[in-house]
Amino acid sequence: MLYFINDYSEGAHPKILEALAKTNNEHLLGYGADEYTQSAKKKICAFLGKDIDDIYMISGGTQTNKVVIGTMLENYEGVIAAVTGHVSIHEAGAIEATGHKVLTLPSHDGKIDADELKDYLETFYNDGNHEHMVFPGMVYVSHPTEYGTLYSKAELTAISKVCHEYDLPLFLDGARLGYGLAAKHDLEIEDIVNLTDVFYIGGTKVGALCGEAVVYTHHNAPKHFVTQIKQYGALLAKGRLMGVQFDTLFTDDLYLKISQNAVDTAMKLKAGLKEKGYHFYLDSPTNQQFIIMENEKLKALGEKVMYSFWEKYDDDHTVIRLATSWATKEEDVDALLALL
Amino acid sequence: MLYFINDYSEGAHPKILEALAKTNNEHLLGYGADEYTQSAKKKICAFLGKDIDDIYMISGGTQTNKVVIGTMLENYEGVIAAVTGHVSIHEAGAIEATGHKVLTLPSHDGKIDADELKDYLETFYNDGNHEHMVFPGMVYVSHPTEYGTLYSKAELTAISKVCHEYDLPLFLDGARLGYGLAAKHDLEIEDIVNLTDVFYIGGTKVGALCGEAVVYTHHNAPKHFVTQIKQYGALLAKGRLMGVQFDTLFTDDLYLKISQNAVDTAMKLKAGLKEKGYHFYLDSPTNQQFIIMENEKLKALGEKVMYSFWEKYDDDHTVIRLATSWATKEEDVDALLALL
Amino acid sequence: MLYFINDYSEGAHPKILEALAKTNNEHLLGYGADEYTQSAKKKICAFLGKDIDDIYMISGGTQTNKVVIGTMLENYEGVIAAVTGHVSIHEAGAIEATGHKVLTLPSHDGKIDADELKDYLETFYNDGNHEHMVFPGMVYVSHPTEYGTLYSKAELTAISKVCHEYDLPLFLDGARLGYGLAAKHDLEIEDIVNLTDVFYIGGTKVGALCGEAVVYTHHNAPKHFVTQIKQYGALLAKGRLMGVQFDTLFTDDLYLKISQNAVDTAMKLKAGLKEKGYHFYLDSPTNQQFIIMENEKLKALGEKVMYSFWEKYDDDHTVIRLATSWATKEEDVDALLALL
Amino acid sequence: MLYFINDYSEGAHPKILEALAKTNNEHLLGYGADEYTQSAKKKICAFLGKDIDDIYMISGGTQTNKVVIGTMLENYEGVIAAVTGHVSIHEAGAIEATGHKVLTLPSHDGKIDADELKDYLETFYNDGNHEHMVFPGMVYVSHPTEYGTLYSKAELTAISKVCHEYDLPLFLDGARLGYGLAAKHDLEIEDIVNLTDVFYIGGTKVGALCGEAVVYTHHNAPKHFVTQIKQYGALLAKGRLMGVQFDTLFTDDLYLKISQNAVDTAMKLKAGLKEKGYHFYLDSPTNQQFIIMENEKLKALGEKVMYSFWEKYDDDHTVIRLATSWATKEEDVDALLALL
Repeated sequence: MLYFINDYSEGAHPKILEALAKTNNEHLLGYGADEYTQSAKKKICAFLGKDIDDIYMISGGTQTNKVVIGTMLENYEGVIAAVTGHVSIHEAGAIEATGHKVLTLPSHDGKIDADELKDYLETFYNDGNHEHMVFPGMVYVSHPTEYGTLYSKAELTAISKVCHEYDLPLFLDGARLGYGLAAKHDLEIEDIVNLTDVFYIGGTKVGALCGEAVVYTHHNAPKHFVTQIKQYGALLAKGRLMGVQFDTLFTDDLYLKISQNAVDTAMKLKAGLKEKGYHFYLDSPTNQQFIIMENEKLKALGEKVMYSFWEKYDDDHTVIRLATSWATKEEDVDALLALL
Repeated sequence: MLYFINDYSEGAHPKILEALAKTNNEHLLGYGADEYTQSAKKKICAFLGKDIDDIYMISGGTQTNKVVIGTMLENYEGVIAAVTGHVSIHEAGAIEATGHKVLTLPSHDGKIDADELKDYLETFYNDGNHEHMVFPGMVYVSHPTEYGTLYSKAELTAISKVCHEYDLPLFLDGARLGYGLAAKHDLEIEDIVNLTDVFYIGGTKVGALCGEAVVYTHHNAPKHFVTQIKQYGALLAKGRLMGVQFDTLFTDDLYLKISQNAVDTAMKLKAGLKEKGYHFYLDSPTNQQFIIMENEKLKALGEKVMYSFWEKYDDDHTVIRLATSWATKEEDVDALLALL
Repeated sequence: MLYFINDYSEGAHPKILEALAKTNNEHLLGYGADEYTQSAKKKICAFLGKDIDDIYMISGGTQTNKVVIGTMLENYEGVIAAVTGHVSIHEAGAIEATGHKVLTLPSHDGKIDADELKDYLETFYNDGNHEHMVFPGMVYVSHPTEYGTLYSKAELTAISKVCHEYDLPLFLDGARLGYGLAAKHDLEIEDIVNLTDVFYIGGTKVGALCGEAVVYTHHNAPKHFVTQIKQYGALLAKGRLMGVQFDTLFTDDLYLKISQNAVDTAMKLKAGLKEKGYHFYLDSPTNQQFIIMENEKLKALGEKVMYSFWEKYDDDHTVIRLATSWATKEEDVDALLALL
Repeated sequence: MLYFINDYSEGAHPKILEALAKTNNEHLLGYGADEYTQSAKKKICAFLGKDIDDIYMISGGTQTNKVVIGTMLENYEGVIAAVTGHVSIHEAGAIEATGHKVLTLPSHDGKIDADELKDYLETFYNDGNHEHMVFPGMVYVSHPTEYGTLYSKAELTAISKVCHEYDLPLFLDGARLGYGLAAKHDLEIEDIVNLTDVFYIGGTKVGALCGEAVVYTHHNAPKHFVTQIKQYGALLAKGRLMGVQFDTLFTDDLYLKISQNAVDTAMKLKAGLKEKGYHFYLDSPTNQQFIIMENEKLKALGEKVMYSFWEKYDDDHTVIRLATSWATKEEDVDALLALL
């Protein structure tokens, strides 16, 4: 069986397991006060090109979105997101369970548009009834998006500008950030630091067993943030589990190197699919590729390949996702292309 | 100044004030256990044509929507509503503050469509990822809608059928229920009792100072409902305030009689506007009429008439609402028509 | 039957009903923007001896406690209250439903003690684990308390001082404020304005049909407070209902005058009970008197007097409450004393 | 430095790391659908002596308490716990953040008493005002408690009996369950299965990197529980991380064996301390020992031993905790005793 079902079906990068084993017998402080977490934060700062105090590690993506959004919004505010955003539809109401509405904008291949954002905000404040409505309180984008697409530097700059104008924090969900940075693209990590107020560096989908590193870019972490993480149930006693993993991922550029593998194998797959005449649902430069398949061919494919059903395209066709990861091998792509 | 701004700018029907004065010196039990509340419930049952135990009075519409939806949904569920529904946009996030998502369907002049509802539910349960999504837990309709429109008996029957099929309670927001019943229309109060699981009879907008009477149609009130109303802060100590009002409204058909006045004056207005060639935004059979006005004429109009801005139509036109109420006089309509 | 069961079993003061009738036909703006609400606010300012912008009217006591506490606390904070405080036990979890813990201090006849408050705060901040605990975020007192007792000026000053030291807002629940002010006592309304951050002037139990007036003493109302009230479902469309009532209560000192009646009749009752040798559960200077009765006498009493069961005293005795109100007549007290 | 600060300062049992490494390259389903999670569940059933379908793995203790309590309570209910219970004071308000009150009973060395529980429930239902109060909805006990103490079989049976009588689910927090089972004691795992409605088997403090296994004892898991876990943000994408760990812990009795080590070393420490004349704060049969130290000796001790400050005893003395774990060596105990 070939595995292209998602980017979290393998375990962890071997160096992470080595580091966990090597540090296993050390007695360390709990709740993220250990030295590996501290070391990881320093290395992340080097990666970001900026000294940042407010870096926190949380076990998963939905948990992180929930904590970040739930702690930053005022009671009367909601978060703006693409209608296709993870927080809008695929988190089982995690955001609403914190008492906040997700306010939706149209999705353009998974992305929101700065002009539409501005229009939304102008319309809201011009509405005579807006005191009876949910105030927009922050803007959520994912990068890469749930469709593998990326914001260009110009696009994110435009969104950031609107956010500043309306005093809205911009939050970037980087569950797959490595795959965005490794892709052929003009939005660099320094830009993300400059343009957003908070973002996270995904670990779970980029080589870790679990863990996302949240970065507040300008001393803007919510007050008593550790207490708030605890209140969400999201504070691991053995914070070392995430500290050691991120310390490893940010040693010798491991995070980017393994991200590059996912993108390279995805690009090889994409080229092969194009050559064979497959139709793409959209143009993705990252590790998730979406193709439109005839329904009658899916069953046979499913016997040899684990892929993701994405959505119905029309009565005869289906959109499927093929995902590579840090662990995908070139020969797997070759084997897949041979099958298709 | 002529007042067509809304249906809650007057006080209460004079008979209500009389009843409040008449009963004022009586010592009554608190929290809705008083005899006037009991009497009101009996009269409401007569009006509904059914003996119903579960009738509760709550001070206002948003409060009622919040309590009903918040207490009936399971944690993992959201409420389905038209994208234009009051709970979707004009309650400042009251529903989400209870931890639940509002799941939206397209609005057809304020109404949802049974086929689209069914399609939504089928799509949800066929989605392989639906365990990561908010489960549909109840359906909300308003009747009349926020646009003054009404569900026909066939339409509500079709929606009710889909709800039964998917075991979803159907909740009808009747903030303006009287105006719906008084309109020329085929959906009777008995139908509403039969087709919905819970609905409310609006008082605030139909002659009362405050108060909505929630009706659970088949012994299906949430457990310990009085305690839950208290938890929402919605249990008035002097429950008599609402008891006396509803007792009055349902004595000698007052509720329907005064509703009829609103509809009659609205129909007179509608006919007059049509004759003068005004363009209607939609066709409303109830007390709210929406017309498309040239922007340049609005300022002059505003000096003599209080109306509601509804929404921008295009760069040169605006949709305004003209609302009648139980208290509107024919001569006010004549005066308005003379102006227009 | 004689009624001493509580202070909310009558309707409203007749002048309130007159004012509602007199203003009934006027067309007024909704949601508290009407001129009577504005007038009421001005009169309240005169009563308070201070120009205050942030006065809001909310329909009932639990609703008010819920809105004030829920909107002022940060996510990681709880409210400190006496273990007997209304918010601690008799609001069906209304505070916790906003996501916040009620942190309890011992009750001294319903009151908290400044030294114990200080000790609580010192212990909290000295606890090495306090980041894993709920931060104290505000202090709640009721005045009169649920036991009819009052804070002296010295006591409230001491509590206020501790609050300032720890930067905690002090919130005074004045559901029966009038009865506290009318009592023989040294804490004046100006002191309350000076010593608290927010308090409310109870209407429901002091002559109104419903309504409490929340006062933020130093421009410290929560941001977008009207929107937040709406979100709680607590914003009445016909805000006039509370505006007219408070406008009346604060015309010609009506509020204090009718409060005085409750206290005078209560003091007459207290003196009579003392003379007859009844045992008091505690010494209350306000309209609620608590006496310890032999169980075997209660049944007979109950046939002629409506009183409140308060709590079991011992196997043979019960604490009952006898409450007067703005409407209690001297002859009712005489009749009651004749019976006892 | 000697480490007796807590039972979560080491990494994982070496066999867990081996298993993670051995399974690392396998492609597995996410969200707990993988085969190791299934295998772990089977082995846990063997350990429990009962076939149980409803076993779920959640990353940490506060998270688990929050999810279990938040999903099982009705809106109008709270959870009963000892005033010293973890959910009462050391979870930063995690339970209240789900909207529910923690109702407290006195603590007897960390335990609640069945008679006091019964008395609480009787008093509640006999209180004429109980409809205005939070209904007791479930009972929480920890075993071992936060003070290392254990419920005897008779004690837990009595509590369980009261719970049945009042139809309240009994929830046992087993964050340190292994240490309770390994202690010289009469409450066996089969008893816990029989007497409770839900409990969890602690991993984080008993040899795992993270993870607690929640067991619903009689097909009583909350509906759509996976969706609800997701909503809390508590569903790890790589569920294998917990599956592999629990699969290892329940292979060849590892869980009990390593728990025995913690208890044995603790008993050796306890005997040594007794011999040296130390005063114990209470009598604990498990891995946490609490002794009363003179403050002036603490500083010197702290230079050689990591211990936990527990609480102030009096002006001159402090209660400290010395904790062993699955990883504590006999020679560490010898070294500590030599120091003391």
